[in-house]
Amino acid sequence: MNIAILGFGTVGTGVFKMINQVHRLTENLHVKYVFVRENKKDQLAEATASFDEIINDPEVEVVVEVLGGLEPAHQYILAALRHHKHVITANKAVIACYLEEFTQAAAENQVHFYFESSVGGGTPWISEIERAARVDDIDHIQGIFNGTSNFILDRMAQSGAAFADVLGQAQELGYAEADPSADVDGWDIANKLCISCDIAYDCFVSPSQDLPVFGIRNITAADINAFARQGYTVKLMGKSRQIGNAFDYAVEPTLYPRNTFEANTRENYNLISLHGQTIGDLNFIGQGAGQLPTANAIIQDILDIVERRDHLKRGFERQLTFQANLTKSDYLLRSTINYQQLFSNYDAHQVGDYVLVHQIPVGLMHSLMKNIQEKDPHAWMVNLPAESHEGAIQKVAYN
Amino acid sequence: MNIAILGFGTVGTGVFKMINQVHRLTENLHVKYVFVRENKKDQLAEATASFDEIINDPEVEVVVEVLGGLEPAHQYILAALRHHKHVITANKAVIACYLEEFTQAAAENQVHFYFESSVGGGTPWISEIERAARVDDIDHIQGIFNGTSNFILDRMAQSGAAFADVLGQAQELGYAEADPSADVDGWDIANKLCISCDIAYDCFVSPSQDLPVFGIRNITAADINAFARQGYTVKLMGKSRQIGNAFDYAVEPTLYPRNTFEANTRENYNLISLHGQTIGDLNFIGQGAGQLPTANAIIQDILDIVERRDHLKRGFERQLTFQANLTKSDYLLRSTINYQQLFSNYDAHQVGDYVLVHQIPVGLMHSLMKNIQEKDPHAWMVNLPAESHEGAIQKVAYN
Repeated sequence: MNIAILGFGTVGTGVFKMINQVHRLTENLHVKYVFVRENKKDQLAEATASFDEIINDPEVEVVVEVLGGLEPAHQYILAALRHHKHVITANKAVIACYLEEFTQAAAENQVHFYFESSVGGGTPWISEIERAARVDDIDHIQGIFNGTSNFILDRMAQSGAAFADVLGQAQELGYAEADPSADVDGWDIANKLCISCDIAYDCFVSPSQDLPVFGIRNITAADINAFARQGYTVKLMGKSRQIGNAFDYAVEPTLYPRNTFEANTRENYNLISLHGQTIGDLNFIGQGAGQLPTANAIIQDILDIVERRDHLKRGFERQLTFQANLTKSDYLLRSTINYQQLFSNYDAHQVGDYVLVHQIPVGLMHSLMKNIQEKDPHAWMVNLPAESHEGAIQKVAYN
Repeated sequence: MNIAILGFGTVGTGVFKMINQVHRLTENLHVKYVFVRENKKDQLAEATASFDEIINDPEVEVVVEVLGGLEPAHQYILAALRHHKHVITANKAVIACYLEEFTQAAAENQVHFYFESSVGGGTPWISEIERAARVDDIDHIQGIFNGTSNFILDRMAQSGAAFADVLGQAQELGYAEADPSADVDGWDIANKLCISCDIAYDCFVSPSQDLPVFGIRNITAADINAFARQGYTVKLMGKSRQIGNAFDYAVEPTLYPRNTFEANTRENYNLISLHGQTIGDLNFIGQGAGQLPTANAIIQDILDIVERRDHLKRGFERQLTFQANLTKSDYLLRSTINYQQLFSNYDAHQVGDYVLVHQIPVGLMHSLMKNIQEKDPHAWMVNLPAESHEGAIQKVAYN
């Protein structure tokens, strides 16, 4: 099977190397083209700077898109599908925005659009949601979906260093981008959660600025230390629940007691979980990023095409409504301004450096937080999951 | 698709209920027969006590074997395969002994023999080993494969109660059998590890009494308490490594620090892990047993047949040698007899209630332990994984 790889960065290079070096693959798979910029095309025999050459070559059956970003990735994927090429991509931003369009284009042209590597890196997350959804209604998804923010939180907890210092280390190690906002402000998780909900609920969820998404940019060493002294670890979580014909969705920092899988997910690992009626809780832990795990997931998609192991078909025809306030939760909030009147309808009281707000609808809490941040850009909040007992919450808050 | 279920215990009832009640399944799947004993056949319209009626009915395409035990399950599975029925079983004992024979009979009769539910209950373990093995050599498998022994160890750690008392509770709750030896002496794990190695290494590993298998029957509340005070939790693990053309294999109690996934795997959950060269570490956590998770895994196999998603083909033709002494490890040993001369070739010294034996070959340690137990049937040992630091080992031992 002839393959074209669009992009020759970390992941593209990994796919190229694996197809050429892993003995189980070399017999059946062949990289015919690597699409690169004009000024890079002399570095590799397979390199071309002409996208048209690739899509007009009838020998190319699979196009692997690892350019990243929305455009031209979006147009290239559509063009490849319309030229009857299967498309595999790791590009979560473009999938989150256009999965419905890509799914339709793939069906019309009788080819496959697969994207296992886009969420959870090497963790078999997309395929396991699809598998679980063959039997169960999946009613809960949650996880540590972003290795970079987890690395930062873990290093802060281990070292006691400030956010900015650890972010700098992560950038030096190549774990974080020069512009870290996708990782630390939660938008990378938002994209991954959208894709997960699309598949789990069979209902297209477009990422938008209105979603309850709150990150870790404002967390301080003092916050982490206060939680740690009481046995809590903070993790940046993506979460969604489906109840009846509605679902909610949030990205937010969350506290976990020390004896949980979440609290013990270290370094840049991912921990992703689903719940279904008959299967119960299933948890997957693996490397959420990295050259070889991500390339492995792309190659698994290629092998599914070779072996005709069709993925679950989704038409996104289910009518579910996004309800930001479907569930309630407890939050600890830290700000220098006086915002007590904002929470006058809720049981909210100052405890130590934080305000503890009890059982407030999640979407409302996020929108009030946006108001607070207009006046206090350093304000920060953290969710306390339902399993936390009142006593434990008080302990953290009063610390 | 018409299905016959052999056996109507917990799992068989679960499969029957799910096929008749889960809306995604009722359209395509139909239970035509439930094979039960002569005196039970009036309880259900689908019941029959005639196995011949089932295998001679050309409408039956799939036989689900959930009788348990070696015979007649072994003969029934072979007969069904030879009558061109696909066979799905949850019976790990019969698979561990006869997987090679079943695989061959299925191939000769152009049907499938699937067994996802046999290891890890609802956790997609077999399918994920097969998936990983499409790309990587899997060189390490380990896990908490048995929910009953994990439940006992967890309850002992939480309550401080003695082994016999907690075993009694587990029997009352239906988690442990009247004869608990398969669960507490490690033979259930041995069967599951054999099956996992068969698939991962493409090399048939038959369970035998010579394998290094040691259980938790002799653990005391004092042992658990001594480890806990130093931050360690004991878990009954199955482990295998493949190095070059050899592999090893052991079932043994093992100490884990408090901040590991293993130490935090509670109640009757399973945590199973694999390592491959490109995928790195992958961990799966889920309910290792229970009616609905196990029935879910059986139904996933049925759906793979319906959707023609063929599982990995294995011929067991790879030449790997079992080497009990392939790896070395540290052990803590507790016995009332004087056995110092047994370890004269190793760095072994008494520390508190235990002897700490450094870097002894695993197989040798297990066989020496069998010698010791001939004179001291209450002797017990626990493995200290390589990640444990010398200081930590000393701390536990000296406690």
